[in-house]
Amino acid sequence: MALPRLLVWNEYRHELQNPDVSAVYPDGIHEAIAAPLRQRGFPVSTATLDQPEHGLTDEVLNGADVLLWWGHKAHEDVSDAVVERVRRHVMGGLGLIVLHSAHYSKIFRRLMGTSCSVNWRVHGTQGENERIWVTAPAHPIAAGLDRCIEIPQEEMYGEFFDVPEPDELIFVSWFKGGEVFRSGLTYRRGYGRVFYFRPGHETFPSYHHAEVQKVIANAAAWAAQPGVRRTPPDNARREPLEKMG
Amino acid sequence: MALPRLLVWNEYRHELQNPDVSAVYPDGIHEAIAAPLRQRGFPVSTATLDQPEHGLTDEVLNGADVLLWWGHKAHEDVSDAVVERVRRHVMGGLGLIVLHSAHYSKIFRRLMGTSCSVNWRVHGTQGENERIWVTAPAHPIAAGLDRCIEIPQEEMYGEFFDVPEPDELIFVSWFKGGEVFRSGLTYRRGYGRVFYFRPGHETFPSYHHAEVQKVIANAAAWAAQPGVRRTPPDNARREPLEKMG
Amino acid sequence: MALPRLLVWNEYRHELQNPDVSAVYPDGIHEAIAAPLRQRGFPVSTATLDQPEHGLTDEVLNGADVLLWWGHKAHEDVSDAVVERVRRHVMGGLGLIVLHSAHYSKIFRRLMGTSCSVNWRVHGTQGENERIWVTAPAHPIAAGLDRCIEIPQEEMYGEFFDVPEPDELIFVSWFKGGEVFRSGLTYRRGYGRVFYFRPGHETFPSYHHAEVQKVIANAAAWAAQPGVRRTPPDNARREPLEKMG
Amino acid sequence: MALPRLLVWNEYRHELQNPDVSAVYPDGIHEAIAAPLRQRGFPVSTATLDQPEHGLTDEVLNGADVLLWWGHKAHEDVSDAVVERVRRHVMGGLGLIVLHSAHYSKIFRRLMGTSCSVNWRVHGTQGENERIWVTAPAHPIAAGLDRCIEIPQEEMYGEFFDVPEPDELIFVSWFKGGEVFRSGLTYRRGYGRVFYFRPGHETFPSYHHAEVQKVIANAAAWAAQPGVRRTPPDNARREPLEKMG
Repeated sequence: MALPRLLVWNEYRHELQNPDVSAVYPDGIHEAIAAPLRQRGFPVSTATLDQPEHGLTDEVLNGADVLLWWGHKAHEDVSDAVVERVRRHVMGGLGLIVLHSAHYSKIFRRLMGTSCSVNWRVHGTQGENERIWVTAPAHPIAAGLDRCIEIPQEEMYGEFFDVPEPDELIFVSWFKGGEVFRSGLTYRRGYGRVFYFRPGHETFPSYHHAEVQKVIANAAAWAAQPGVRRTPPDNARREPLEKMG
Repeated sequence: MALPRLLVWNEYRHELQNPDVSAVYPDGIHEAIAAPLRQRGFPVSTATLDQPEHGLTDEVLNGADVLLWWGHKAHEDVSDAVVERVRRHVMGGLGLIVLHSAHYSKIFRRLMGTSCSVNWRVHGTQGENERIWVTAPAHPIAAGLDRCIEIPQEEMYGEFFDVPEPDELIFVSWFKGGEVFRSGLTYRRGYGRVFYFRPGHETFPSYHHAEVQKVIANAAAWAAQPGVRRTPPDNARREPLEKMG
Repeated sequence: MALPRLLVWNEYRHELQNPDVSAVYPDGIHEAIAAPLRQRGFPVSTATLDQPEHGLTDEVLNGADVLLWWGHKAHEDVSDAVVERVRRHVMGGLGLIVLHSAHYSKIFRRLMGTSCSVNWRVHGTQGENERIWVTAPAHPIAAGLDRCIEIPQEEMYGEFFDVPEPDELIFVSWFKGGEVFRSGLTYRRGYGRVFYFRPGHETFPSYHHAEVQKVIANAAAWAAQPGVRRTPPDNARREPLEKMG
Repeated sequence: MALPRLLVWNEYRHELQNPDVSAVYPDGIHEAIAAPLRQRGFPVSTATLDQPEHGLTDEVLNGADVLLWWGHKAHEDVSDAVVERVRRHVMGGLGLIVLHSAHYSKIFRRLMGTSCSVNWRVHGTQGENERIWVTAPAHPIAAGLDRCIEIPQEEMYGEFFDVPEPDELIFVSWFKGGEVFRSGLTYRRGYGRVFYFRPGHETFPSYHHAEVQKVIANAAAWAAQPGVRRTPPDNARREPLEKMG
């Protein structure tokens, strides 16, 4: 059975403007996310903000089973029309994996209906250690993991994370500075599956971390419904299925 | 302890235009909803679509602990500015009870992030019977109910109901014509509590039904956080709580 | 990738004692469940109550990724030792699919912690029609289904179904006689995944129904963690992971 | 409206045998839990392990709306008959608040269906600091709390906490040594409501902590269904509610 087709979207501006970021992700965060997925055999394409239509035409979206999304400082530059287009594809069955600072992306906020705000901190230039604990070891997204994932350097996100109660809570993060964060969350929206995963600050090498890569691959397999793209749900009048009196 | 302050909002157009509706609800659906709540001792005020600002100024909203919302054919006439205002109050702690066709209101769709679409049918002039089964008998919204509520005449709503998986599923409806529907659903959004309750087609006397009235009263008590209205959650930078290395 | 190894367990007494049952399931309910799974390529073995140790030795259980369980009138004849053995395998990662009247099996009640009781009725010799509605169309267990599954003849199970709130509600059933039932439910227990699926009264041909077969196959794939069988969770003392003051 | 009647059950052995415990809780942990509840106006009685029938006769249980349970080293000394009696009361509507090491009590394990095991550590004689973060600020159990509760000295409990996915996740704890823990969890079982709350190691003064006391009082109000004690759910045959063909 062919593996699902993945599409990695990246804002791709930090890397072009900030040498501290390009030092960590010389080919862009999208390529860092895509490479280990390709190694696992997934067909992976990429798209970025400054391409025409942000690289997200209907044709491109139809060619993907799962969309992975990284954005940070330019959420407002994503056009509402493209956000609406992506939303319709998710409602129709496209999987969506929302990474790190994309908690504040237009598409995630739109799908959640809440502010999706967090408490946050980048501690100095070194960040702080994050330890991602598995709270749902039987879930396919946690397959192959040990009790926790150690990440030496990260930005902190802390509760209250203003999202709806997730369908499933897969991970909870511990931070050196004293906070916790629900860092792996699943949701179903329309006919689509959505996963939020926390790590991935642009100045730290989290996407080079083998266990982070494993989670992203697990999530991509979980979110995919290959060959399924329905018309999103809509109000419809129906005749009775039973004989009425 | 004083009972929470309730605000019943109604589109209030069917009743003024359609004698079949005003025959059932001569003072408007809002007054039919408000009366039994007043009898239970709740302080209840009302607001309607065609009042200035739809009757929903910040001052009015600040004076309520729970907002009940009925709308049907004029969802699009509710201004986006007022929807955003109500949304901010809900995120800040205002309870929200969404009734029947308000599944398709701007405010509910905005808070859910999905289409909130349903399958539906009004069978002839008599409708069909709905039987609302209790699936969470230990929940305060189901307090005092028997196994089910019998409603002789209603419009049908059937699955798939395109809403997020609820925090709690309280009721499931059976319809004569062959459908089922998740008809009592709780959600938390920001600092607020939201409840969707299905019955209430404008040509049928569901809001005169004693058990329906009991559920609405239970839900109002459940959704209220009297005296709580916080600034809605927002991103915030935080200093470490622990000494960092 | 090899498909998961399935083990179908059946009480297998009705079929030997009641010609009305053997007329529908001449080779036993276990073979009726197993055959369409084998057709899909799953390696399937079977076990029955009256075999030594009910056919469920540690060796047999270790050889399975998912156990499917049908029982009805002899729940009390299943030995507590075997129930405890199965429970430990589930806690360690064995998938479990609980079918129809096995809602009242020792293993399901033990894993749920509730009575798992239902309201029920067999209407005459023909039963009544059940319509299984999909409430979670994006879930892998509902893959390939239309809006609902029509089953012409079944026993009725009605709410209140005394089980814990499921992790995910996949199906809700409608019954001709007026009841609804949460008929497809997922749970995680320890390191294992559990799915309850309602249809399957012994005198009706539900396991010959193509859509019922599809759901069972979907559920088997969902519940399986091939190659995973851990030591079930247990209390453990741990040293700090961080330097303590 | 009268406040619900509370019954605090304590193992009450540490306090009689270990001066380090009696120094912190001279009148027993049960009295430390009861006192601030009485101050809030709740009628509170107590019962302990070494009373006849552990102080938990049907008459005593019928006189309570909510039972609070603290146990640690003598779980096995609680008779199965009393556990079954308590279970039936919970299934019939008695609220149950399970505190700290009672995660491993017979009654909690029986109601959960899992091992309820944890990872744990008492760090030296001083313990370590726990910070209980609020993840559901709109929930009544979190009413009146700030973002988190600081507890200077506690035993550590860490994930994986082998319990079913809760109905609602209210709190997540951070520990100095590097772990996180889901520390406030709600469940419905039968007609009853259950809340697990983590803090309360016997050598540390957590039950003298004002915010811990507030949570326990909130939880008692939430779990209570005054005047409700039903026959627990049981299988029942039912006639059709609709005319059958």
